[in-house]
Amino acid sequence: METDRTPDHPDLRGVTLQKVLEALVDPVRRRIVGQLSDAADDISCGGFDISVSKSTATHHFRVLREAGLIRQYYVGTARLNTLRRAEFDEAFPGLLDAVVGAGLRP
Amino acid sequence: METDRTPDHPDLRGVTLQKVLEALVDPVRRRIVGQLSDAADDISCGGFDISVSKSTATHHFRVLREAGLIRQYYVGTARLNTLRRAEFDEAFPGLLDAVVGAGLRP
Repeated sequence: METDRTPDHPDLRGVTLQKVLEALVDPVRRRIVGQLSDAADDISCGGFDISVSKSTATHHFRVLREAGLIRQYYVGTARLNTLRRAEFDEAFPGLLDAVVGAGLRP
Repeated sequence: METDRTPDHPDLRGVTLQKVLEALVDPVRRRIVGQLSDAADDISCGGFDISVSKSTATHHFRVLREAGLIRQYYVGTARLNTLRRAEFDEAFPGLLDAVVGAGLRP
């Protein structure tokens, strides 16, 4: 259920490559994106395997949201996160696969 | 002709995605990469359409070189630059095409 607590999400046509790369250059944010990419289901903000404080995580989610990489929505009191994969792939073909794939390098 | 003035170039197997993204997050460095990608020939350090000082450009070339994106070599007194495309594509499949392609977005 989306409510008016749902944060704003940008139209990907207005998101610049600069904004996207600034989001993806951070290793914690790439971990978040990688875990969303691997997951069968959307992940709550507390459900990621990242070693940062809650407030730092909230910052990272905001940067990813503003770069058009993730969508956040509420179910009850839980804020859930999902990759905007189809929209993102249309706007930046191949970029997400390349970054997530490269993140698996030994 | 390569001489002992030729700077060191990393083995791409040892280059991290972090290093690559830190190189590509800078818009001037993306311009350099994009112009090399578009060019039929290698480009001398003074031959790029970038609005930065020579010393700043030298810094950008070094970052790109250390990230495995470009190879620099001398011909006489001219330092020339070439993309390490085949090697880079093998190490980071799809990443260069995605970034260069996205740079053409309106």
